[in-house]
Amino acid sequence: MLPFARVTVIGLGLIGSSIARGVRATMPTARVTGFDADPEVRAVARRIDLCDDVADTAGAAVIDADLVILCVPVGAMAAAARDLAADLPADAIVTDVGGSKASVLAALREALPGATIVPGHPVAGTENCGPESGFASLFRGRWCILTPDGETPETATARVQAFWEALGANVECMTPQHHDLVLAVTSHVPHLIAYTIVGTASDLEQVTQSEVIKYSAGGFRDFTRIAASDPTMWRDVFLNNREAVLEILQRFSEDLTALQRAIRWGKGDELFDLFTRTRAVRRSIIDQGQDDARPDFGRAHE
Amino acid sequence: MLPFARVTVIGLGLIGSSIARGVRATMPTARVTGFDADPEVRAVARRIDLCDDVADTAGAAVIDADLVILCVPVGAMAAAARDLAADLPADAIVTDVGGSKASVLAALREALPGATIVPGHPVAGTENCGPESGFASLFRGRWCILTPDGETPETATARVQAFWEALGANVECMTPQHHDLVLAVTSHVPHLIAYTIVGTASDLEQVTQSEVIKYSAGGFRDFTRIAASDPTMWRDVFLNNREAVLEILQRFSEDLTALQRAIRWGKGDELFDLFTRTRAVRRSIIDQGQDDARPDFGRAHE
Repeated sequence: MLPFARVTVIGLGLIGSSIARGVRATMPTARVTGFDADPEVRAVARRIDLCDDVADTAGAAVIDADLVILCVPVGAMAAAARDLAADLPADAIVTDVGGSKASVLAALREALPGATIVPGHPVAGTENCGPESGFASLFRGRWCILTPDGETPETATARVQAFWEALGANVECMTPQHHDLVLAVTSHVPHLIAYTIVGTASDLEQVTQSEVIKYSAGGFRDFTRIAASDPTMWRDVFLNNREAVLEILQRFSEDLTALQRAIRWGKGDELFDLFTRTRAVRRSIIDQGQDDARPDFGRAHE
Repeated sequence: MLPFARVTVIGLGLIGSSIARGVRATMPTARVTGFDADPEVRAVARRIDLCDDVADTAGAAVIDADLVILCVPVGAMAAAARDLAADLPADAIVTDVGGSKASVLAALREALPGATIVPGHPVAGTENCGPESGFASLFRGRWCILTPDGETPETATARVQAFWEALGANVECMTPQHHDLVLAVTSHVPHLIAYTIVGTASDLEQVTQSEVIKYSAGGFRDFTRIAASDPTMWRDVFLNNREAVLEILQRFSEDLTALQRAIRWGKGDELFDLFTRTRAVRRSIIDQGQDDARPDFGRAHE
């Protein structure tokens, strides 16, 4: 039993192209239609045979869809929804993959009055972007969060859940507000910190860029991976999840100030206690299959 | 031409055991003697045949060495050096692998008056520790920094450089003070930030530990790897490289405050500009072979 027979993906970047590939790999009888506002991306999608069909307008892409997945940066969700509103079938379900949920839900409700909307966020990705960076297994073993509210029919949520499970994801439902706080901790503030330290290192007068790069294996290089993520997507996430990001950032800054003080006053025990406590978190992440157990992420050493 | 014929490794953790393995792999005619203050570590080292010989005292380990490498946490360097001082041959060269150099050089000069000291720091490692976590290729393609001062004979520095090159490392010399600043940026502050955010996430009341772990693939998990590093080693690094760490931390905090303000006031262009700039650093690190080019560190996706 296919949860959906005609799936339309709007936005063919890393996530959109991974969904298209995933549907073709796991639900081969479903038809996948794609659209991207960028004609060059549409041309690439056609060339690599990403979808059964790539439409030239958003309207043409959704005209007989039963599931429409918006895979554009969260700041572009409202415009993408408006573009397809006139052609959206009445019984279609609309979902999205945006990294902030309260703002996206409000934007979609306004752009698509009366539509059935199941906001979603697959917590998966890499630092690469574009239609050629996607792969079918991106969501396997990862979690996808759905944030339906009182207006969302339960049957619609259940079908979207079945869709993500078919792609290999685990699904959990929560409120948009709770999602935004959880992701501020597990994704948004980590990205912001990574962008910051990479910027700080680039701007130092006393240490050259060449030195930063040479000695990056001391830890810095791990931060540069996520600081290489798509700039537009991340700008939009921070602007659209402002409150939660600022709240977590405040907590982080307080904790960092406490450690700074411990270093200044030579309080080795405080440092040791924290450094011991944080190892347990890593073990749990590995135990639950959310990261690679091999040291150094299994980076090749030979 | 072997740079050294009789190498003694004091401290058989990740770095010490990697050196022992590396010497046996690349300089098979050299003899490697090991010592660790922990009798259990010595027992493991004997069981896995890590060295040609594992001595039961530091003195016995160095008695006919021509190179002695101190591979203990920087806070333990002085005591480790005092333990072997009486038995150190007059013509032996002493080096170390400590992550801070000004404090270690001062400690070694005091503990080993008259000895030939070439302070060193191979910028390589994983989050694992102990004698079984080492591997011969850990240093291959990585950089090793030597920080000789005016008292260090150039011939001694050249021999230690040849030793590291035989293990596959690139070698660069700089002052201890410059080393400490460079490593504060490329290693110490990144570790401190990672420890902090993992601690912050663990302490939140509104987000459960289980949620942090489930959704860690959003970016957080990359921080947990380095926040799983050895607590004793890292406590000592922060206490011994206090000035440089506090200086870089101050810069980082200023930069983070500027980004926080950009988010609060909705200045998307500022965010976008930084997020674009940081991608170039990642590309350089990959171009220079200091990290894996595959997305997501090549984490398995199938």
